[in-house]
Amino acid sequence: MKVCQHVNIVTCDQDFHVYLDGILAVKDSQIVYVGQEKSEILEQAEQIIDYQGAWIMPGLVNCHTHSAMTGLRGIRDDSNLHEWLNDYIWPAEAEFTPDMTTKAVKEALTEMLQSGTTTFNDMYNPNGVDIERIYQTVKDSKMRCYFSPTLFSSEAETTAETISKTRAIIEEIIGYKNPNFKVMVAPHSPYSCNQDLLQASLDMAKELNIPLHIHVAETKEESGIILKRYGKRPLAFLEELGYLDHPSVFAHGVELNEREIERLATSQVSIAHNPISNLKLASGIAPIIQLQKAGVAVGIATDSVASNNNLDMFEEGRTAALLQKMKSGDASQFPIETALKALTIEGAKVLGMENQIGSLEVGKQADFLVIQPQGKIHLQPQENMLSHLVYAVKSSDVDDVYIAGEQVVKQGQVLTVEL
Amino acid sequence: MKVCQHVNIVTCDQDFHVYLDGILAVKDSQIVYVGQEKSEILEQAEQIIDYQGAWIMPGLVNCHTHSAMTGLRGIRDDSNLHEWLNDYIWPAEAEFTPDMTTKAVKEALTEMLQSGTTTFNDMYNPNGVDIERIYQTVKDSKMRCYFSPTLFSSEAETTAETISKTRAIIEEIIGYKNPNFKVMVAPHSPYSCNQDLLQASLDMAKELNIPLHIHVAETKEESGIILKRYGKRPLAFLEELGYLDHPSVFAHGVELNEREIERLATSQVSIAHNPISNLKLASGIAPIIQLQKAGVAVGIATDSVASNNNLDMFEEGRTAALLQKMKSGDASQFPIETALKALTIEGAKVLGMENQIGSLEVGKQADFLVIQPQGKIHLQPQENMLSHLVYAVKSSDVDDVYIAGEQVVKQGQVLTVEL
Repeated sequence: MKVCQHVNIVTCDQDFHVYLDGILAVKDSQIVYVGQEKSEILEQAEQIIDYQGAWIMPGLVNCHTHSAMTGLRGIRDDSNLHEWLNDYIWPAEAEFTPDMTTKAVKEALTEMLQSGTTTFNDMYNPNGVDIERIYQTVKDSKMRCYFSPTLFSSEAETTAETISKTRAIIEEIIGYKNPNFKVMVAPHSPYSCNQDLLQASLDMAKELNIPLHIHVAETKEESGIILKRYGKRPLAFLEELGYLDHPSVFAHGVELNEREIERLATSQVSIAHNPISNLKLASGIAPIIQLQKAGVAVGIATDSVASNNNLDMFEEGRTAALLQKMKSGDASQFPIETALKALTIEGAKVLGMENQIGSLEVGKQADFLVIQPQGKIHLQPQENMLSHLVYAVKSSDVDDVYIAGEQVVKQGQVLTVEL
Repeated sequence: MKVCQHVNIVTCDQDFHVYLDGILAVKDSQIVYVGQEKSEILEQAEQIIDYQGAWIMPGLVNCHTHSAMTGLRGIRDDSNLHEWLNDYIWPAEAEFTPDMTTKAVKEALTEMLQSGTTTFNDMYNPNGVDIERIYQTVKDSKMRCYFSPTLFSSEAETTAETISKTRAIIEEIIGYKNPNFKVMVAPHSPYSCNQDLLQASLDMAKELNIPLHIHVAETKEESGIILKRYGKRPLAFLEELGYLDHPSVFAHGVELNEREIERLATSQVSIAHNPISNLKLASGIAPIIQLQKAGVAVGIATDSVASNNNLDMFEEGRTAALLQKMKSGDASQFPIETALKALTIEGAKVLGMENQIGSLEVGKQADFLVIQPQGKIHLQPQENMLSHLVYAVKSSDVDDVYIAGEQVVKQGQVLTVEL
């Protein structure tokens, strides 16, 4: 058993327990004690790490990103979504090779780990991706990953061919039998997949009993395209196909009206909220407060670095909180606790992993990050820890990170990725 | 003469010149050469610093902050402006002592320098502030500072008394005869100063030939208060007093309508834009694109750490750009160049210092920051430098900072402030 001592612990559990000068005990991959210091725990420890007043919180959960696009950071700024996708991103992705995507994923893993992210949901355009190499890279990093191979309709392929290619990838991943490397079916969006492909994707997800992951309601333009093509808005269109009755992560959800939010409340859909990407591509601000009030799980996500342009979840969570205050005209909305939960336990819920990760509780996996505020001028006065973790912290403040009890970042250096 | 060699230089000059693998030569406090490498310059150098591909840009200009409030970081989140001021900030400031404010200013100077800010416009509630100690602290730091002592109407003091106290402070500062430590008259706001005090503040500013600095049009609530009190909106009220015909920095400018923006175009007013504070206090998003189109100078500012909660100008500039894209629904708005200029030369214009600082040009003061992208995973690929300086950089990436040619930060360590 390993014990972190002299730590201020933000558990992000149901009652948002915070332990000042507490201890966190880990055995194998699990948390076996969290709370005030207890001599009987310390006596059983094989290793005691004196963290001298550092802050500990759960590892951050990035609910929607595209790690293979990390080489495209800064490729094109100042464009709206559809121009950006059609004229820059998709042509660039068409040139991807396994060497490029493997390098990009390694860079993404490094950036995510350095900034305290321990779990991510990764949507891949499978072009130029060598699944086995990616698998090995992610496995070595120790990060928890949902791999979401993306499906697009194209004139070069039939729906059956697309499904068959994707199914082979999914079966390869399932074949690894690695509980830290799971898979979702990811039809790209209602506008880039035809109805056949969307239906076949859902059927495959049902058959294999894995979740769906799709971009939905990202822009007004999308609503216009779908309305013109199918005579209904994206959510109604997907509802008819059956998407709302299967566990699904909808990335974005910017363009949702009141009735649609109400409908989501009784669905199996959760939302991956990408506030910075939605600003940068001029998509808008998702109605997060309303979604949360309706009981929809909302996690935070960075999207790719091509529309962000970093994988900094602390910046993302802060931006989410700031935007909801402004949008509602009420600064008491999306308070600190909500922001810290959105970065952790709510993200875990979005991915259906809330029983394993997302909070520091006995029995859960020991995924956590450590920030030593001492000597960091922007984290003073230290007693306002909770506020600073939302509003003042930089991702570069993350000192140590542990996943399943194993240290993966030490004083800002990633131990598990070789660039 | 000192030369920085092998640097990629973002000048932020009129034509936005960028020099790749260039040199920057400094003699005494001034830039004497900027551009492609030239052997005759290198031959004259007494010192050559090989920056090995680092990025150089002008020091950042923070147009509105309150450094003495730095001890209040995290004192209260999740409150709207007026509750936050009345119930938390003003009571806390009433307890300030010279020791507290001097410490707070030292922390602010450290945080600003570490993050590449070289000039700031500082509004001080004079309570508990020892001007001489503050002066010495700022002077030692080498930062350029506009000191703006704040005036409030109160029942405890007559207007004449308030003016006389403030005038003593201003004359003390003018008496230092330090060109890097200037002064503005800062009536707090149209709602916290009565008409007499606002008028007397302007008269004093005119007489002493120094600018005004005031919070204006920050919230809808302010507009309501002023409309009720004087029968007109804040801008019209200040216009009648004569504020628009005197060089003035208006902090915020969130609640400005089209007609008011048009009026500002022919005024002597410039705007200090505080995007994060305006979100955090649920004030709104200032109409920056419209102000810029009208020709009003707009600089970026952090406000105090009590409503931000840091002094990170890179984060502030990025947020400004992201918000204007979203607000306009057009991602091409507030492009990268605009963001970089807003952080530098436009800020210098707001403070009337554009002939001395804000861009890297021959004859200007050598105020600049250096970022080495090598080894920073989130600043790759390096060739997209301009994009990264807006969208990917963290303030913790700033390695070195120079003011008037003198190094004040070395590898992230501040050399000129003793905490």
